Amino acid sequence: MPPAYFTALGNKHSLFLHDPDPGDRLMKIALAQINPTVGDIAGNADKISRCIARARAQDATLVVFPELAIIGYPPKDLLLKPAVINQCVQAIHALAASCTDIAALIGYPCPSDEDQGRSLYNAAALCHGGRVAHRFVKTLLPTYDVFDERRYFEPGTQPQVATLDGVRIGVSICEDLWNDAELLPRRLYHEDPIQALAKDGAQVLINCSASPFVIGKHAFRLQLLGAAAKRHQLPIVFCNQFGGNDELVFDGNSCVLAADAGVLGHAKDFESDLLVVDVPMGQEQATPGQRVETAQEGIASAYHALVLGLGDYCRKCGFKSIVLGLSGGIDSALCAALAAAALGAENVIGVAMPSRYSSEGSLADARELAERLKIRFSTVPINDAHEAFERMLGPHLEGLPADATEENVQARTRGVILMALSNKLGAMLVSTGNKSELAVGYCTLYGDMAGGLAVLSDVPKTLVYELAKWINDSPDSPLRKHHNGSVIPESSITKPPSAELRPDQTDQDSLPPYDVLDQIIERYVEQEQSTGQIIEAMPAAGADTIRRIVRLIDLNEYKRKQAAPGLKITGRAFGFGRRMPIAQRYEHDQRDL
Amino acid sequence: MPPAYFTALGNKHSLFLHDPDPGDRLMKIALAQINPTVGDIAGNADKISRCIARARAQDATLVVFPELAIIGYPPKDLLLKPAVINQCVQAIHALAASCTDIAALIGYPCPSDEDQGRSLYNAAALCHGGRVAHRFVKTLLPTYDVFDERRYFEPGTQPQVATLDGVRIGVSICEDLWNDAELLPRRLYHEDPIQALAKDGAQVLINCSASPFVIGKHAFRLQLLGAAAKRHQLPIVFCNQFGGNDELVFDGNSCVLAADAGVLGHAKDFESDLLVVDVPMGQEQATPGQRVETAQEGIASAYHALVLGLGDYCRKCGFKSIVLGLSGGIDSALCAALAAAALGAENVIGVAMPSRYSSEGSLADARELAERLKIRFSTVPINDAHEAFERMLGPHLEGLPADATEENVQARTRGVILMALSNKLGAMLVSTGNKSELAVGYCTLYGDMAGGLAVLSDVPKTLVYELAKWINDSPDSPLRKHHNGSVIPESSITKPPSAELRPDQTDQDSLPPYDVLDQIIERYVEQEQSTGQIIEAMPAAGADTIRRIVRLIDLNEYKRKQAAPGLKITGRAFGFGRRMPIAQRYEHDQRDL
Repeated sequence: MPPAYFTALGNKHSLFLHDPDPGDRLMKIALAQINPTVGDIAGNADKISRCIARARAQDATLVVFPELAIIGYPPKDLLLKPAVINQCVQAIHALAASCTDIAALIGYPCPSDEDQGRSLYNAAALCHGGRVAHRFVKTLLPTYDVFDERRYFEPGTQPQVATLDGVRIGVSICEDLWNDAELLPRRLYHEDPIQALAKDGAQVLINCSASPFVIGKHAFRLQLLGAAAKRHQLPIVFCNQFGGNDELVFDGNSCVLAADAGVLGHAKDFESDLLVVDVPMGQEQATPGQRVETAQEGIASAYHALVLGLGDYCRKCGFKSIVLGLSGGIDSALCAALAAAALGAENVIGVAMPSRYSSEGSLADARELAERLKIRFSTVPINDAHEAFERMLGPHLEGLPADATEENVQARTRGVILMALSNKLGAMLVSTGNKSELAVGYCTLYGDMAGGLAVLSDVPKTLVYELAKWINDSPDSPLRKHHNGSVIPESSITKPPSAELRPDQTDQDSLPPYDVLDQIIERYVEQEQSTGQIIEAMPAAGADTIRRIVRLIDLNEYKRKQAAPGLKITGRAFGFGRRMPIAQRYEHDQRDL
Repeated sequence: MPPAYFTALGNKHSLFLHDPDPGDRLMKIALAQINPTVGDIAGNADKISRCIARARAQDATLVVFPELAIIGYPPKDLLLKPAVINQCVQAIHALAASCTDIAALIGYPCPSDEDQGRSLYNAAALCHGGRVAHRFVKTLLPTYDVFDERRYFEPGTQPQVATLDGVRIGVSICEDLWNDAELLPRRLYHEDPIQALAKDGAQVLINCSASPFVIGKHAFRLQLLGAAAKRHQLPIVFCNQFGGNDELVFDGNSCVLAADAGVLGHAKDFESDLLVVDVPMGQEQATPGQRVETAQEGIASAYHALVLGLGDYCRKCGFKSIVLGLSGGIDSALCAALAAAALGAENVIGVAMPSRYSSEGSLADARELAERLKIRFSTVPINDAHEAFERMLGPHLEGLPADATEENVQARTRGVILMALSNKLGAMLVSTGNKSELAVGYCTLYGDMAGGLAVLSDVPKTLVYELAKWINDSPDSPLRKHHNGSVIPESSITKPPSAELRPDQTDQDSLPPYDVLDQIIERYVEQEQSTGQIIEAMPAAGADTIRRIVRLIDLNEYKRKQAAPGLKITGRAFGFGRRMPIAQRYEHDQRDL
């Protein structure tokens, strides 16, 4: 069985744009797919204000914003600061005052009215008539994976339908939509807020979302939206956030479906957009229209998500440039390409740091990559410090056989060099390790793990290869178009991967082939399969190998605890959404009790 | 206003042990205060089994275990693995089979019966008559600070009273008790499970807990338990976990209160214990008995928590020894003392790493500390590698003025040395930074922040001094008793703190005095006060200083993201219980919107 992201890669969805029937009762709705910066309340309010003005200029009756748009998703523990909540509420009231001739639906954290329970709601304000005319409260609060909403919010309990311009609009927020008994393996919640809205007479379903990117997820979102539309015979408006915020990338892909699930409009992916759609109210059907270019899928979507996530992390942290080590290998080559795409080649500094074990080919590959990408390039041989450490440590390690210690010293020496360049030049260091390495600890803490962002920490090695080939070969590849050819040297892709920390080392000396390794990781980490289940499913991999890999994944939790944040693109990334104990002793092969 | 931990230090509680009235209906209850290792289901089952045997030997009717005792608290995402849950359930059934002549109440994760909602309960099994006779389910699921229970569990809804030996026992689990409208600033929950038990005719209230240590918390626990006992006129049995699991330390302090809140029995703190108490059922009063030595408080409790947390982290991760850098300063001296107390002096390796900027006094202080503590001691001067890095980096940093870069290179060179010793010797590196430094980023990522555990990361600098003085001077200090005198050199305590990374540097060159700094941190981090509130409360500190410190705390989130885990001893530690975004731009001084 291939890893799930391959399944997702094949999961194509093609959309046909539908036109409403000319006899319908229509409401012109604008979907404001904005990129808020977490915590930047004034800046986000400016963006919202500009979108309201643009929607007004297009005669929209209502402009819809994403979940918690005023503070940006996910705001995390900023929500625990009363001063933050006060600022959000004040900003919403100021925006509402400007909504005299248009209505706006804006996500915000709203203080609860009750004297017990959590003190906040995850809400959306219907700003209309110069005031907050109605407040909708999220009912289903995701508290799994990267989501922590029960930590902050009290759930809503009432069906949330309000009347606007004579139309009953039913508003839900993100997760409220994600409790579909037919499409999901298990309903996590007892309530169905969408059904409650339909029962309460909603003529249109509006969902304010901050739904993060995962490869293949948008196809599923369209299924879910379509199922809800058809089940309740109502049009549905889905407005999603776009942009990167720490580990999460939001792909946008806002859209409007008719009551028969026909797509009435679809916003861009990985870009800001203001999509204005004439939405037929109630149970009207859509009629087939022209086919539209819509969301990018598979490898292409992963590429755009990584570029956006990396770029936004730099921009929102205030970094204008990136520094990274170039080993001549595929991981650092891919990272350099992504960095050049994110911030521009002139803002990327590649540093080759050859050691006594580096091959000449590696240095040549690093140099060629830099030349093809047109990034800045420096060489800092590490031997001087490497020898100094050997002299200094020699008397203290005397008599003990060589092991990973000596390899780690080299990796950490490179970490010191890269961090010095980062500190001095104000460039963010990108850590280049991939998900497969991070899983089994094939990486050095404070060495190659050093950096502000681990761009590939949710990209399995097999997908690293796919991405490199896509960047080089796909007619859709922006870098290929820009440079009029492939940018990653072929030999970086074709040579056997090696850390080059001792003579004649290759990754496969100590690890199974990456396609096997990635399947084990996928089953254990993403699917939570037991060792026994994996052995049964992958007999050719060998039970001992599988047990050893699973044990390596468990044992290396301490490294991942101190890893740089990474960009989530699969169903389960290492990082905030996977919270494992470190000092633990779970035994996979159960003893008799 | 002094920081809250000082308030807590003054919060003494003295207990008088009460004897039950001889006319009471009694039940002999054993409280098994065990130290489970997270995930070690077979090992924990062994511990539980031995406690059942000991309780049986003392003729107990019932033996009570802590919350989730079979898997250890907090199990975190191990709970998402179906194989883990299966093993827990099997272990509980095996233990239940042995409970023929005694009853045991054992915390475990239990699969839910329903086909929707979360698939697990946080439960306690009443093992009796050779089977699981009753299953109690936790109602209130803490989801704040370090707690994530809504991530895993579906809440219980029924009052949970069962009959054992003719007595109606009402069982609650940990947080179920923590919703007291009179004692807590806000009720986070709408339900009151303790009241429900009382209404359902419980004659004794039993609470299975995993309530982590915070300075001053046990005094509050006794208030809470006493209030519940008196409110419902029922005796209350509180069985707590002890031991360290990653960031959390559990202090034990299990106890039994009579219906009038008189203490009938109190287990040890920071140790395993099996407390057996004849508990009078129903509304019987206790009669005053002799005074008992009970829980240690304030500084003493912080000392024991840190020693236990450090020792258990090493033991549960499989480390037998500790390595750490000794700068001659107070932080590393305190860490070395705690390490010696945790694992024995013979298992601690102190390493002095003088640079061209180190004073002779620093090296002498480091050496004297090692001699007094009788730990192993090595000196590795860093100049050789320091110069090598200067030669290597020189051409790349040319023309740019000296800044923190050069200081960081020294700190990271030390990090490389310590990690090499850790790797080669199999000794865990302890990171020695304190909470005040970590707050404002007065520490080097991959340098002095390197390590497996940051022992002092929740110990503010002012408390570092208090702890050092207590270790040296208190008649209760185990190290003072063992070494028959003070162990930390006076000059490490009295000299002005300095990182010694450039000539004539002291911490106070760039930071306010630590008593001021710690108050700002306490208000901003623990109390979530706004900059405006802090400026109003601390006018003498100066508004600009306060703004600068708050900004430093925000800006250094990226360093803390990659910090080693630390031991929580205050109401709010950096780490798992404080989840801040990194790429965020919250502006404390609000612009006009």
